[in-house]
Amino acid sequence: MKTNPGRFFEDYRLGEVIAHAVPRTVSGGERALYHALYPARHAFYSSDEFARASGLSAAPIDDLIAFHIVFGKTVPDISLNAVANLGYAEGRWLKPVWPGDTLRSESEVIGLKENSNRNSGVVWVRTRGLNQRDEAVMDYVRWVMVRKRDPAASAPDTAIPKLAPTVAAADLVVPEGLNFTRYDFTLAGEPHRWGDYAMGEKIDHVDGVTVEESEHMLATRLWQNTAKVHFDATNREDGRRLIYGGHVISLARALSFNGLANAQMIVALNAGAHANPCFSGDTVRAWSEVLDKAETPAPGVGALRLRLVAVKHGAEPFAVKGEDGKYRRNVLLDLDYWALVPM
Amino acid sequence: MKTNPGRFFEDYRLGEVIAHAVPRTVSGGERALYHALYPARHAFYSSDEFARASGLSAAPIDDLIAFHIVFGKTVPDISLNAVANLGYAEGRWLKPVWPGDTLRSESEVIGLKENSNRNSGVVWVRTRGLNQRDEAVMDYVRWVMVRKRDPAASAPDTAIPKLAPTVAAADLVVPEGLNFTRYDFTLAGEPHRWGDYAMGEKIDHVDGVTVEESEHMLATRLWQNTAKVHFDATNREDGRRLIYGGHVISLARALSFNGLANAQMIVALNAGAHANPCFSGDTVRAWSEVLDKAETPAPGVGALRLRLVAVKHGAEPFAVKGEDGKYRRNVLLDLDYWALVPM
Amino acid sequence: MKTNPGRFFEDYRLGEVIAHAVPRTVSGGERALYHALYPARHAFYSSDEFARASGLSAAPIDDLIAFHIVFGKTVPDISLNAVANLGYAEGRWLKPVWPGDTLRSESEVIGLKENSNRNSGVVWVRTRGLNQRDEAVMDYVRWVMVRKRDPAASAPDTAIPKLAPTVAAADLVVPEGLNFTRYDFTLAGEPHRWGDYAMGEKIDHVDGVTVEESEHMLATRLWQNTAKVHFDATNREDGRRLIYGGHVISLARALSFNGLANAQMIVALNAGAHANPCFSGDTVRAWSEVLDKAETPAPGVGALRLRLVAVKHGAEPFAVKGEDGKYRRNVLLDLDYWALVPM
Repeated sequence: MKTNPGRFFEDYRLGEVIAHAVPRTVSGGERALYHALYPARHAFYSSDEFARASGLSAAPIDDLIAFHIVFGKTVPDISLNAVANLGYAEGRWLKPVWPGDTLRSESEVIGLKENSNRNSGVVWVRTRGLNQRDEAVMDYVRWVMVRKRDPAASAPDTAIPKLAPTVAAADLVVPEGLNFTRYDFTLAGEPHRWGDYAMGEKIDHVDGVTVEESEHMLATRLWQNTAKVHFDATNREDGRRLIYGGHVISLARALSFNGLANAQMIVALNAGAHANPCFSGDTVRAWSEVLDKAETPAPGVGALRLRLVAVKHGAEPFAVKGEDGKYRRNVLLDLDYWALVPM
Repeated sequence: MKTNPGRFFEDYRLGEVIAHAVPRTVSGGERALYHALYPARHAFYSSDEFARASGLSAAPIDDLIAFHIVFGKTVPDISLNAVANLGYAEGRWLKPVWPGDTLRSESEVIGLKENSNRNSGVVWVRTRGLNQRDEAVMDYVRWVMVRKRDPAASAPDTAIPKLAPTVAAADLVVPEGLNFTRYDFTLAGEPHRWGDYAMGEKIDHVDGVTVEESEHMLATRLWQNTAKVHFDATNREDGRRLIYGGHVISLARALSFNGLANAQMIVALNAGAHANPCFSGDTVRAWSEVLDKAETPAPGVGALRLRLVAVKHGAEPFAVKGEDGKYRRNVLLDLDYWALVPM
Repeated sequence: MKTNPGRFFEDYRLGEVIAHAVPRTVSGGERALYHALYPARHAFYSSDEFARASGLSAAPIDDLIAFHIVFGKTVPDISLNAVANLGYAEGRWLKPVWPGDTLRSESEVIGLKENSNRNSGVVWVRTRGLNQRDEAVMDYVRWVMVRKRDPAASAPDTAIPKLAPTVAAADLVVPEGLNFTRYDFTLAGEPHRWGDYAMGEKIDHVDGVTVEESEHMLATRLWQNTAKVHFDATNREDGRRLIYGGHVISLARALSFNGLANAQMIVALNAGAHANPCFSGDTVRAWSEVLDKAETPAPGVGALRLRLVAVKHGAEPFAVKGEDGKYRRNVLLDLDYWALVPM
């Protein structure tokens, strides 16, 4: 057979490194599309001049564009037969991505655990995005539940990786040359600096976006993510297309501008859960909580650890889980990340 | 509160200058998206070669892209609490915008008038779009009706600006170097030159476009326009999203190619009214009327003052207002502008 | 009248050359949009680095982008009053198109035949796409059935061009410098090389895409194709918009990645039929058949002649025509092309 059936749980070996296909050169076209698909307004990624005033040579490609491209390449090898995307950890943005760069991805299998029903198992991979100079631009761990081709197949020994509960502030990578001492808060859109945010503070980002089929498909295709469920309405019994979880991440992050306009760059992904599926017609809203604060060695650059929660319209304010410990029905995303903020 | 509640009528002061946030660098990406979102075919903006044959170094970014970007930046400060966008005047395009340019906007409050009900008032602003060299690329006046936060709040003294009913032909700014003496009418798509258009002539542009939710949202986001009504279906009682008026302007202008293919560049905006709201599912059509003609000092370059009317399918031909002096139900847009045309 | 009513059958003269309007400069923006509109993943067009490793200076603009742009320009002169797009022949890609190139089109009328009902006739044109150096980047023959303005009008003498049933392998144009001897099959996504494909082999491409109104309109506008039926829901009695046949071509070609990832470049179009109309909501699938194989003089570069069939969800596997010799109801496209493949 010439087509790719995807890998099944019993096909993975601990320690193997999978080189993913279809490198991608990015341009101003991807950026313009990103700004059409999401209400993205962080000045650092919107304006070459703002990035220059922050010590860089121009505006890099948006942090989440890099993430989506790196992630998309892994789908045919990692999650084509996935039942669920279970989590993220130890994600770090390591180098800015520039227009003209070509990205590719590779994943190392760092953990395997068959489920007790023997129908599926959990695969942990550490994925790295690389540019055309073989420099890592980001890496992150994710784990997915993958079907077995044959329930009777013998499974590899269980190996559960030890993952940091959060990326330590000391491990955050600040882009070379970044300097927020001449930061223009008026151009950025809000006056709130690092010192204005308090641990535990919660921010309702106010705005909402009603999602359309064509938008999430345009986005997901742009990242060359091929999972059938996002595109083929005949794939599910209810005739609905499941929206790529990363679409909700980008939507929520863009909505968080209103209250976090100065959280310019995402530099680490500590954890993330796609709590409930999102479908066309849902109106997505978002709120954030300040989880931690840290300084960085870069001039004028602080870091905030933020919880970003995406919900459907009608969700109770700032509610995440029910008394049963499960995510509430209206919660779509629970993300934990570090962002760089002017001091 | 960290989020932006927008300004209310009593927050404006006559003469103050508001610097708007989020500068934006434009690229070929914005142009490609514009040509996907609208049936835009004016050769001058479509082809570097055509622009070079007209004396410029390459094709600038479309006139209305510049307008939308400059306008979009003003929304969080001017029209987030607006009840209605009442009008435009004295708009001029002053410099071409090139791929790689970074645009920002600032607005001066030039008029204020509280309504007799004291619940709202009219704010006049003169908005300027600036590039990274602080050169004005366009300016225009618009006025909006803005809610008061507190009806009891004292209002500033009434000041109504004196606005020109139309931009005088002598004040039109022709891009430096523009020369239409070697103009290729075949490549442009129509043979009609400046002399072929008569005052009072009306042109039905024939074509129609049925509008979709995702298209107007892609466009409006691309201009970083954040007004809730365009994106959030829960915002109105009828569950409909109001289409950004500028989307209708661009749609009508693009449709006007058929009959006005040689009206290559918009150089002035004399007046404009968004007569009725536009919603997804509407089929938009357009017609134009020649209001005035003028010569310019540039070789081979004339100017036409045009009325551009966008209507919904089913509108009566060339009808604008009813006997009551109000816009007919099917009229969406009534725009008055100057365009440059080969002699 | 200032607007373009399109040409009618009696307006064409054998041998005349029609220069089409609105040249278009392409950029990374068109490429990004193409990759958002279609699940396009062929590495050669996705990655500058992959194209460089194949002997070119960078990734050209996708083969079908060039086709759509060249085709779109012909619509106002050739198919505005067309009843049906009947066929393609002798299509060849002659030069890569690069970001920054400006494309225009011209068509020579090479055949005419009035229908016996005298209401319409068939027009054959050979269309050439030219870049800013007046080099042909592609040419192809297509024939369309065009209405007569006046059934009583006298028709030109019948002249039916003699067309090659397929482009001979010896006439395929391989881009200068193309070299697949260092081809990276892992990066390309599949291990199958030229020798792995057998004449008569059929491949079901597995994946499906459910089509949305806004997507086909974005695409069709991007190619500046102005045919009313694609945009105006009031144009047909059933209120449906007919999807541009080229949209189905691109969709099917992109879907064929899964099984034909190494069929990197389309270099010839032998024949093609839009078997049935496609509408929003249809889920498009595709399968291919290997029709022929050939070597080329370029190092490591072979050619496959492929039949690409696009169908709606629910079509019978590998079925094309019924016993009556007509296309089955669920078949959308039957295309015959040559692609370059590593040996």
